[in-house]
Amino acid sequence: MKPVPNLDSIREAARRIGPFAHRTPVLTSCTLDRMFNTEVFFKCENFQKVGAFKFRGACNAVFAMPSKEATRGVGTHSSGNHAAALALSARLRGTEAFIVMPRNAPRCKMHAVAGYGASIVYCEPSEASRREIMDGVLKETGAVFIHSCNDPFVIAGQGTAALELLDEVPSLDVVMAPVGGGGLLSGTALAVAGVSPQTRVIGVEPQGADDAYRSLQEGRIVPSIDPQTVADGLLTSLGDLTFFIISRHVEQIVTVSEEAIIAAMRHLWERMKIVVEPSSAVPLAALLEGKIDLSGLRVGVIMSGGNADLDQLPWMRV
Amino acid sequence: MKPVPNLDSIREAARRIGPFAHRTPVLTSCTLDRMFNTEVFFKCENFQKVGAFKFRGACNAVFAMPSKEATRGVGTHSSGNHAAALALSARLRGTEAFIVMPRNAPRCKMHAVAGYGASIVYCEPSEASRREIMDGVLKETGAVFIHSCNDPFVIAGQGTAALELLDEVPSLDVVMAPVGGGGLLSGTALAVAGVSPQTRVIGVEPQGADDAYRSLQEGRIVPSIDPQTVADGLLTSLGDLTFFIISRHVEQIVTVSEEAIIAAMRHLWERMKIVVEPSSAVPLAALLEGKIDLSGLRVGVIMSGGNADLDQLPWMRV
Repeated sequence: MKPVPNLDSIREAARRIGPFAHRTPVLTSCTLDRMFNTEVFFKCENFQKVGAFKFRGACNAVFAMPSKEATRGVGTHSSGNHAAALALSARLRGTEAFIVMPRNAPRCKMHAVAGYGASIVYCEPSEASRREIMDGVLKETGAVFIHSCNDPFVIAGQGTAALELLDEVPSLDVVMAPVGGGGLLSGTALAVAGVSPQTRVIGVEPQGADDAYRSLQEGRIVPSIDPQTVADGLLTSLGDLTFFIISRHVEQIVTVSEEAIIAAMRHLWERMKIVVEPSSAVPLAALLEGKIDLSGLRVGVIMSGGNADLDQLPWMRV
Repeated sequence: MKPVPNLDSIREAARRIGPFAHRTPVLTSCTLDRMFNTEVFFKCENFQKVGAFKFRGACNAVFAMPSKEATRGVGTHSSGNHAAALALSARLRGTEAFIVMPRNAPRCKMHAVAGYGASIVYCEPSEASRREIMDGVLKETGAVFIHSCNDPFVIAGQGTAALELLDEVPSLDVVMAPVGGGGLLSGTALAVAGVSPQTRVIGVEPQGADDAYRSLQEGRIVPSIDPQTVADGLLTSLGDLTFFIISRHVEQIVTVSEEAIIAAMRHLWERMKIVVEPSSAVPLAALLEGKIDLSGLRVGVIMSGGNADLDQLPWMRV
């Protein structure tokens, strides 16, 4: 039995990943604060190892494994940041990583994963093929499967970003995070509930991938079918563990338009001079679009990462 | 008589601009350090007010003016970061700024300058027209001219970036800065000479705008004629004051190709996740291109700013 993680699991994760993960900076913007009459504190996981918060969770999961289990290696399916995060974590632990990726995944992502020394196994771009190939790889290699979100060690690892934010910026009224599979939001919510229970936690999701919003509305997991959004890190749907934690600890899920996400991303690049991926801009999009009024409040925002495709920026699409 | 600035002028500038300027962060990159077998410390002036180091010099010059002189306002010609920096500095001091800009300057730069409340006066895109219009504006308004580089208060202000870097990162073997009109490099060289005289200072310049390199070769100011480079902040040629300071305190000027500048800029965006303008990438280009071997050394790099055109990134040009 893997129990639901809590503040202790997050503190343990922080100690475990401390030697490997960056303590990322918290940045602010006078312009934004004036625009929204708020104080916004951005936790910049774009500066994290592999360019995304995903390193925290993967690193915690890999280093929490008993030595004997760890020698078997780890495996996952992902074409995104979790793949790179698991690959690097495995290398740091001195074990193997097997990553199942669709043949049509962006080449730059394949290069990144291969660059961290992982073995890539290709599947067809379908759920059925992915599952079949993944099962085969795990059976053949004996590697331990590590899910990108619905895993207590992964969630505890993701919670360390909020833990650092709360430590550096006390008395936050609200903490916002983007929602995809819910690993980041779950970890964030657990950290906030443990350290600063009076602080509200709000998840923000693209309208085109709003399974968390609908799941909270209907009181059961409603997965996204063919989600469409520029925020390519947020396509995954909630799992049972992340749904449970979000149900207990998140005040609300707000949804935002594609236009607002792109405008928010551009604002972060242009005014704050940081390279962030579209998913990072999703919480700011909620403010830009007036989906939520946080005036007079101190707001923390967890930014997911900075792995944007510099050859195809969303404001350049024709 | 305006005496040549020195470490005292820079310390005075630091006190003067302290309430207004950001103390910008110093970032490092494990990847780069491994690539070049160095430790490189990037002073990130892209996070400075108006997105560039230019705010330091302009702010120092404007706040160093006696009150009576300040009421007359300030003026300059610039289509770039100095214009925005002077406009904001004037607004902070509660006085007027008159900026002469060529009619064909990028609209975004005009908007930025106008957004800081400055009056823009247009000239034709020629040196003769610019001078004529500028002279007319100064005569008519009584505003005080503040040159973008060749001014002791501006140079002292620019030196505060290196002062902060040396304070935060002791024992640097080398400090590198890009060279345009030489204000940043002069201020940097004076700060280093005063605080850490054993540290070498190296300027880096685009091959297509290599007046500082040629000036040091020939021992006299050799202005660039029709300079061409993607590093649009480095088109200006040295003035007599910056040439003098650079002659005394800078070990060498290294030149770099356009390809290396663009590759370095992309590296900074992609791996370090920061938005920097091409001029900021010029020192790193010297390392990438193998123009200089700094292996085993601790190297400081002053990055000029982050005002890049997000609609036209240099690696996208066809």
